[in-house]
Amino acid sequence: MLKSKKRVTMLLDKGIGLRSQRDLLDTAAPYITQVKIGWGIGNVLPEEILKEKIALYREVGIIVSPGGTALEKAILEDKIDQFSLWLRESGFDAVEVSNGVVKLDEDEKCDLIRDFNKKGFIVLSEVGSKDPLRDHSISIKDRVEATRAELDAGSQKVIVEAREGGKGIGFFDKSGSVISHKISEFLECVDWRDIIFEAPLKNQQVFFIKKIGVDVNLGNIAHDEILSLETLRRGLRGDTLKISG
Amino acid sequence: MLKSKKRVTMLLDKGIGLRSQRDLLDTAAPYITQVKIGWGIGNVLPEEILKEKIALYREVGIIVSPGGTALEKAILEDKIDQFSLWLRESGFDAVEVSNGVVKLDEDEKCDLIRDFNKKGFIVLSEVGSKDPLRDHSISIKDRVEATRAELDAGSQKVIVEAREGGKGIGFFDKSGSVISHKISEFLECVDWRDIIFEAPLKNQQVFFIKKIGVDVNLGNIAHDEILSLETLRRGLRGDTLKISG
Amino acid sequence: MLKSKKRVTMLLDKGIGLRSQRDLLDTAAPYITQVKIGWGIGNVLPEEILKEKIALYREVGIIVSPGGTALEKAILEDKIDQFSLWLRESGFDAVEVSNGVVKLDEDEKCDLIRDFNKKGFIVLSEVGSKDPLRDHSISIKDRVEATRAELDAGSQKVIVEAREGGKGIGFFDKSGSVISHKISEFLECVDWRDIIFEAPLKNQQVFFIKKIGVDVNLGNIAHDEILSLETLRRGLRGDTLKISG
Repeated sequence: MLKSKKRVTMLLDKGIGLRSQRDLLDTAAPYITQVKIGWGIGNVLPEEILKEKIALYREVGIIVSPGGTALEKAILEDKIDQFSLWLRESGFDAVEVSNGVVKLDEDEKCDLIRDFNKKGFIVLSEVGSKDPLRDHSISIKDRVEATRAELDAGSQKVIVEAREGGKGIGFFDKSGSVISHKISEFLECVDWRDIIFEAPLKNQQVFFIKKIGVDVNLGNIAHDEILSLETLRRGLRGDTLKISG
Repeated sequence: MLKSKKRVTMLLDKGIGLRSQRDLLDTAAPYITQVKIGWGIGNVLPEEILKEKIALYREVGIIVSPGGTALEKAILEDKIDQFSLWLRESGFDAVEVSNGVVKLDEDEKCDLIRDFNKKGFIVLSEVGSKDPLRDHSISIKDRVEATRAELDAGSQKVIVEAREGGKGIGFFDKSGSVISHKISEFLECVDWRDIIFEAPLKNQQVFFIKKIGVDVNLGNIAHDEILSLETLRRGLRGDTLKISG
Repeated sequence: MLKSKKRVTMLLDKGIGLRSQRDLLDTAAPYITQVKIGWGIGNVLPEEILKEKIALYREVGIIVSPGGTALEKAILEDKIDQFSLWLRESGFDAVEVSNGVVKLDEDEKCDLIRDFNKKGFIVLSEVGSKDPLRDHSISIKDRVEATRAELDAGSQKVIVEAREGGKGIGFFDKSGSVISHKISEFLECVDWRDIIFEAPLKNQQVFFIKKIGVDVNLGNIAHDEILSLETLRRGLRGDTLKISG
């Protein structure tokens, strides 16, 4: 179960081709826990490529979900049933429930989490807005409450939004630097094992490894940064050389 | 014909290998209208790889030109005939006429456009200097006049220079942000359908899609951003989720 | 011998898969002198992949070393003999001796250079700290003395540290701009042919080519920038169009 796992590394797959994906699996499969096929990338990939992509990951035990935006699009268009069918036909075993753009109050979000659980999917949820202004206005208290409610509803991990770029969102400022005191406050109220921190930039990964430990759950890792992150976790890169992992 | 096309997506190919190119075509071929093999990359690739690269694109109906710099080098060295021969032997069906570095007045540039048209090539032209200072000194009036003259001479689309990096050039400031009022002024005098905006950065792509529409012609898209751009056009990414394309 | 070579291009391989590596060699093998498998990436790659990776490079005459951090880890753990064995079993023909993180005085560093020479490896050494504050406190005089001592001890080239990112380290400021006067001072006292400048960013590569010449030795070049660097050296990109190489 994803719920009990530490050291989760979540890859952000932006639609890399199958040769490139095989390269990635040959070199780094054991270091990838879960893959998010970013936002609506799964909807523009040719169907047969998408199916083979998901199958290749799942063969080696990697969990696969589409991006939260794919679900949000379905919510906007009132097509959740079709979306669920598409998940199943494509081979996804996980789904991410987010409200980064659409308005969805916590009760509705938790209902969705419960619904997808009942349908047999591994559910992750994401807290945060894709709009930097709105995102920075979410208080720590609200983040904590949403996190707890979503875990109670059956989300296996709660993801802290940072987007692909990692700047100006979540616990990061415009330049991508970490706003450390916000994370400290947040971690006083939640268990880090329940959280996946999106941390696409190296300075962010280093921060979390030093602050929380080598087993911290990290997400939105680019496919060509998976090995680098593993070296950071193991103290095999200058930034963490004196830390053993 | 490229001239009448909307929603042109021009890929910047920096010399990706053939396996990577096949991955790209498997996942994204329908979303690529035209490829520019950047600057003089075509001159340093092994000849047989270049020919196969061009052939692979053309087989699926994608137009292929070398970068404008390749022609500018030939102009500097007074080797335009050899350059034309190389174009043909390599399999290019298009050519880009630019004066980003070499001095070439508008009459000479339009003569070149006419010459390459006569030789049977699809011609695109590019307006702008690769030197940020010189580029920012080109007035909107001059840009408009150059654009009109080059379209009249037979250029199928006029490209607005932004380089690979997208910063400090064309309608972008040093940080890559869009200088919106310049674009508004420019678009009062030209038809957006005749223009390809080089827009390598996501914020730039989002700007143009919101300002002009999902069919705006965009260029200098990296090979690993083609799918992402398509999701932006279709409202499948947070930035454009509420826009349908 | 690497010692007498000019125009060294040192690739930073972050663990690209074998398909991607074959793509690279098909398109750019003649432009790569030497490969550094970054920091401890060699330690997290599956053993058989690492061996095949090294063999593929060496088959076409490219020199291969692990990153300096791999050796520094071995120094910290007092496992230099095991490290040497691993080098040999994996197929490396070169080693990089650095003290970017561990404390190692110049005498000890030069002893290590001599030791690896005796063991039959091509030895490169690196001057600089991975910590920006410490790195910027190294005087030019100290850099020059270290460089001379290490060349005397048998280092074939001395690398100026700039890390993968190229910012805030060595002769670069926080934004990656070149601190030109420091390089001028340094080059008054050492022969540029003995130095490899790590220069991952294009503006840095352009600077060195214009300042020192098209044959300058450059390092930490990403795999997808090898062709671009070659075009810069040959005056086939806007930035260096009027320079012939």
